[in-house]
Amino acid sequence: MTIYDISEKAGVSIATVSRVLNGSDNVSAQTRQKVLSVIQECDYTPNAFARGLGLNSMNTIGILCADSSDLYLANAIYHIERELRQNSYNCILCCTGYGLEDKQKYLNLLVNKKVDSVILVGSNFISDNDAENDYIREAAKEIPVLLLNADFDCDNVYCSLCDDFKSALQATTYLIESGIQDILYLYSSKSYSTLRKLSGYQSALTQKGLPLRTEYMQYFPGNHADLPSIADFLSSLDHTLQYKAVVAADDNLAIGAVKFAHKKGLSIPHELSIIGYNNSILSTCCDPELTSVDNRLESLCHHIVTTLIGILNDKEMPQKVIFSGELIKRGTTR
Amino acid sequence: MTIYDISEKAGVSIATVSRVLNGSDNVSAQTRQKVLSVIQECDYTPNAFARGLGLNSMNTIGILCADSSDLYLANAIYHIERELRQNSYNCILCCTGYGLEDKQKYLNLLVNKKVDSVILVGSNFISDNDAENDYIREAAKEIPVLLLNADFDCDNVYCSLCDDFKSALQATTYLIESGIQDILYLYSSKSYSTLRKLSGYQSALTQKGLPLRTEYMQYFPGNHADLPSIADFLSSLDHTLQYKAVVAADDNLAIGAVKFAHKKGLSIPHELSIIGYNNSILSTCCDPELTSVDNRLESLCHHIVTTLIGILNDKEMPQKVIFSGELIKRGTTR
Repeated sequence: MTIYDISEKAGVSIATVSRVLNGSDNVSAQTRQKVLSVIQECDYTPNAFARGLGLNSMNTIGILCADSSDLYLANAIYHIERELRQNSYNCILCCTGYGLEDKQKYLNLLVNKKVDSVILVGSNFISDNDAENDYIREAAKEIPVLLLNADFDCDNVYCSLCDDFKSALQATTYLIESGIQDILYLYSSKSYSTLRKLSGYQSALTQKGLPLRTEYMQYFPGNHADLPSIADFLSSLDHTLQYKAVVAADDNLAIGAVKFAHKKGLSIPHELSIIGYNNSILSTCCDPELTSVDNRLESLCHHIVTTLIGILNDKEMPQKVIFSGELIKRGTTR
Repeated sequence: MTIYDISEKAGVSIATVSRVLNGSDNVSAQTRQKVLSVIQECDYTPNAFARGLGLNSMNTIGILCADSSDLYLANAIYHIERELRQNSYNCILCCTGYGLEDKQKYLNLLVNKKVDSVILVGSNFISDNDAENDYIREAAKEIPVLLLNADFDCDNVYCSLCDDFKSALQATTYLIESGIQDILYLYSSKSYSTLRKLSGYQSALTQKGLPLRTEYMQYFPGNHADLPSIADFLSSLDHTLQYKAVVAADDNLAIGAVKFAHKKGLSIPHELSIIGYNNSILSTCCDPELTSVDNRLESLCHHIVTTLIGILNDKEMPQKVIFSGELIKRGTTR
């Protein structure tokens, strides 16, 4: 039962039904009465949010992200919200934090509010421990779920992602081919995307016949927005590590490596090469500027909105779309 | 007419009315019928968004910001959204861009959707041309309007702001007292907040008996996220300008100045001192790290949510609250 059925049964236009639902004064008492009767008769409950909206904005999309102050996530929200609104969709944003319980809670909240679809922004919504992904499977039974930069196979789940494995593999290969063999991989989350990058780093080494050494894969346990402590972390590492390059899982960590090099008096890129990830505003902040992987965020966002609109208009849409990243070369590599 | 009146007239609990409005199956046909009759009889249109929500989350707040990918605005949204949600409010985010027409359009949209209140994030919603502020006056006739970091006198408008005039005055005075007289002020927007900073800069010079020279107040016309072009802009300035310090209206512009100094081989802070604004993540990115004004964003956000909850609970709240910024001294000043 939709607003279209109500309009037909009541013999009035959709706009009139919408006006009645919106409590507009611009409807005669008689017409209002007729529409309300049909609604009651049909036991029609309009979409919670559609009720407040005009004809061209009948859909509300929930957007979940862990932390809207994270540079990558903030940019994603910006692009998605803009594009949805240009298409007359409304957005409800929830910042969930990184805990599973809160992610579950907010996703349920949105599903219960009968949003038309949800977009989960960032790969941290998917866990390696598959049981922890059940909350997404449950939601997908109710409404389409779209994942930005995560990969998850499930009915009614659609993924737009950048191939982080390939991007990290290419970045690492680029360093090896420039003559560097001792490369540190630095990461600060265990999200799907971060672990894919780690695999890419490992594959590059393996393909070139280089050894995998766990001490060259370092997990920074602190807050990746605290740049000075990233530099301190690198300073604190075992001095027997003889790396000549750092591949970082994001630009924050890479900036930490730049700061570390400055502190230690290492010349960049001659004594230490550094590659970041995200090609964010941070990549042009430092001196020299940061070589970084452009992970096509804007294209991903554009695609996810296109997919969403297609689904809501009953079109057949691909369940997975994968973009390739590009290494943007600047001053921190040769 | 509220949900409470409906509950009383129908002789059922508020929770039951809520369940009917939400289309829950957990209500007998008879009760549903009774509630719907009362609703119809009373010509009651529930708040568009409240209809979808449970009892503890009946309020929806509209958040407008020009650009959620801007660092300052992204952080503001993060803090406001988190705190509202912790208090069981819902948020609808609109990214309006900087054009007056779009700002008007989205504000009207939210008011028409009967959100309970709107928060306008960032001083760019207020214009120096007072006629351009009429859209806010109109909205304030319908619902409470809260402004983050803008100052605007109007009934039903509440402001939480940082005293940007005083902060810029203190920052500039600090430079003058460290022995620097030739100070460039660099800005890239003409928002209320940016112009207040400009006044603070001017007052500091005047108070110390120094001349005001318009060529030392430079407006950067480009995109302030494009850091290299900020550096280029400084390089392109008239070489007769003999400034020894830059006070920048935000950290982006200050980082541009750091890049300019590196390019030109100027030593920081000995040949060029630099002060940024916002104390954002950028301030710890560069080398040396940036001295920057902490403009108390988190406190402002906390306060604006407290004010909002007070207003919606019919408490008397102050119409204006002003925080003082603090100069965080790092390596770009002596």
